[in-house]
Amino acid sequence: MSRLPIVQRIDDPSILDLGWGHPDPTLLPVEEIRRGAEAALKRFGADALQYGHVAGPGPLLEWLMARIAANEGRAVDPDEILVTSGISSGLDLALSALTRPGDTVLVESPTYYLAIRILQDRGLDLVTVATDGDGILVEALAQKVAELKRDGRPPRALYTVPTFNNPTGTSLSDPRRTALVELAAQQEFTILEDDVYRELAYDSPPAPSLWSLAPPGTVVRLGSFSKSLAPGLRLGWLTAGVDLVRRLCESGLLDSSGGVNPFTGLVVACLCEAGDFDPHVARLRQAYKSRRDALAEALKRYLPDTFRWRTPGGGFFLWMDLPSGVEAGFLLPLAEASGMSFFPGSRFHADGGGRRNLRLVFTLYPETQLVEAAERLGQAIRSLPAHV
Amino acid sequence: MSRLPIVQRIDDPSILDLGWGHPDPTLLPVEEIRRGAEAALKRFGADALQYGHVAGPGPLLEWLMARIAANEGRAVDPDEILVTSGISSGLDLALSALTRPGDTVLVESPTYYLAIRILQDRGLDLVTVATDGDGILVEALAQKVAELKRDGRPPRALYTVPTFNNPTGTSLSDPRRTALVELAAQQEFTILEDDVYRELAYDSPPAPSLWSLAPPGTVVRLGSFSKSLAPGLRLGWLTAGVDLVRRLCESGLLDSSGGVNPFTGLVVACLCEAGDFDPHVARLRQAYKSRRDALAEALKRYLPDTFRWRTPGGGFFLWMDLPSGVEAGFLLPLAEASGMSFFPGSRFHADGGGRRNLRLVFTLYPETQLVEAAERLGQAIRSLPAHV
Repeated sequence: MSRLPIVQRIDDPSILDLGWGHPDPTLLPVEEIRRGAEAALKRFGADALQYGHVAGPGPLLEWLMARIAANEGRAVDPDEILVTSGISSGLDLALSALTRPGDTVLVESPTYYLAIRILQDRGLDLVTVATDGDGILVEALAQKVAELKRDGRPPRALYTVPTFNNPTGTSLSDPRRTALVELAAQQEFTILEDDVYRELAYDSPPAPSLWSLAPPGTVVRLGSFSKSLAPGLRLGWLTAGVDLVRRLCESGLLDSSGGVNPFTGLVVACLCEAGDFDPHVARLRQAYKSRRDALAEALKRYLPDTFRWRTPGGGFFLWMDLPSGVEAGFLLPLAEASGMSFFPGSRFHADGGGRRNLRLVFTLYPETQLVEAAERLGQAIRSLPAHV
Repeated sequence: MSRLPIVQRIDDPSILDLGWGHPDPTLLPVEEIRRGAEAALKRFGADALQYGHVAGPGPLLEWLMARIAANEGRAVDPDEILVTSGISSGLDLALSALTRPGDTVLVESPTYYLAIRILQDRGLDLVTVATDGDGILVEALAQKVAELKRDGRPPRALYTVPTFNNPTGTSLSDPRRTALVELAAQQEFTILEDDVYRELAYDSPPAPSLWSLAPPGTVVRLGSFSKSLAPGLRLGWLTAGVDLVRRLCESGLLDSSGGVNPFTGLVVACLCEAGDFDPHVARLRQAYKSRRDALAEALKRYLPDTFRWRTPGGGFFLWMDLPSGVEAGFLLPLAEASGMSFFPGSRFHADGGGRRNLRLVFTLYPETQLVEAAERLGQAIRSLPAHV
């Protein structure tokens, strides 16, 4: 039998792959996790392997609560927080409590393509709302909500990545944050805030979470260790209203499981309590910031100036606008022939848009390879048959 | 702030708790998991922390496939197996692919009470089928299926624990296994086989899994490391038809997550490859078998002979029939006043039955405490106001 794979993305050494939003393996905290696992089993012994406290292991919840209170200017009560298996699982759990198949859910456009699939898998009816360089257009959203209500399809929720958005890298402006949570509270839909990139702010502190600004119960904020530590841990959390947290804790799934990931949760709690979290995230910020800058610089050098982008303030992604007449789906095979790859913008649109956009990931490779990838993309562009 | 709990069940030293189906913490493989974690991070490095192969980490899948082929007389192809976060999560995943709210799902009666909740949380319509000491009554099931089809409510699935049942401890007889998988194939409902107790057979090898007997695609067999290693790992697997496995691997949830639990999966793969699985399970079998025997012996000594049970061939549970006029719900507070506890049978019935049954767990305590618990139960019975 040939060996089955270990990881999701199989590396092709001939392609510099700026498509997949994965971290650089060389930056993953192998030694810190090793120490965390050793500490958790030494300190908690069999308790680390038993059915866990349903909301998550106490030491992890306590570390998260202290960090949130210190960083976000809003304290979270123990009955407003729940450990999850990461954002995707937290999103799916929240949807299980908030929606039924056929319900209408709003998504910004573009948005994280696999979140679209998670929503569609639940039989939800997706309605898109436009965005610009400052995030979702709250006035357009308000209009859409009013229309949907008139049509008897009141939206149950909005899924959004307001901070260092996937795929655009933009952050929702502060005035729009305030307007958005007010609209949600008033119109009674829940904001599902995908907050996975919060720790990865490169120029200034991230904008406040929608959760921290909103009346209790308005926002389910989905946090994760996938980008700040490691995706293979499958560990995240959510902060939400007490009713939702209670419903999830009382669900058959979580009650029967004894929480989602007690062993890994205690490994990470020990890592965090040992003081290994902040230095690791500081290293990531430094590395990813200089990769972002190297990529942006190289794109300026190698691409025609009709290709435009904004330098993102954090996260994993650079989102590019292609000039009129150039479609990302047409460029992609040329780029791959030149030895680099990206995700075309259409992948991030539930409604067929994004054909003149592409997403570049600047976290997987070091600077030299990002520069090389930009040069190859430039070659591909020059080989376009009727390049404008 | 008072400390938040780590584990699900908070021990009350004044009560011998034969209610919760939990393993004895002193039997959990702390040292084996420590070695497995160290080996996984040393051997796989960052690959152990990256987004994982969606069906589960290759080394774990390969170990499971080899074990299943050796023990079950049916090999499993790589596209028929998927690593899960345990039975509850595997059941919920399978339901996400197989059912929609309002669909009819069959359950045996009695059955695992939290599986009932998982089914109900998905808005499914539960229909119960009676059982006896040899498991589910397949003729009664066939009748029920025919009735439901006549009523335009064709059942989509049957959830069953055919091997060392929770709560009854019984195993479905071999003739009924054959008849059951034939019925499911013919009537086109999927059997959701909860196979969590397979490794814990005390007297003779367990009966063949329904999955191993059935035509491909008829059975989703849910396996787990929760009872054989540790529940806090949240690690299991399922074997099923290629269509279902593909649908789950292509779901937004699993694609976005990169598999359910890559790090823990590789920890367990290393534990298993190091040869630590079989000796550990052998120790469990020996310990639990002698606990089962000690409890059964003590019940014979301390309880009136109008209280009846069968000694289970494996698993965690002893299921007791109470004499006419004695209800478990009435006995429970007396038992707790005597310093022991159990789960009343009604908890395992979706339809209000089981009032003259109770479930005793013989895995959490060593022999002396089980004997003490039996004696206390005897005291409680003697204190019943009108004891028959």
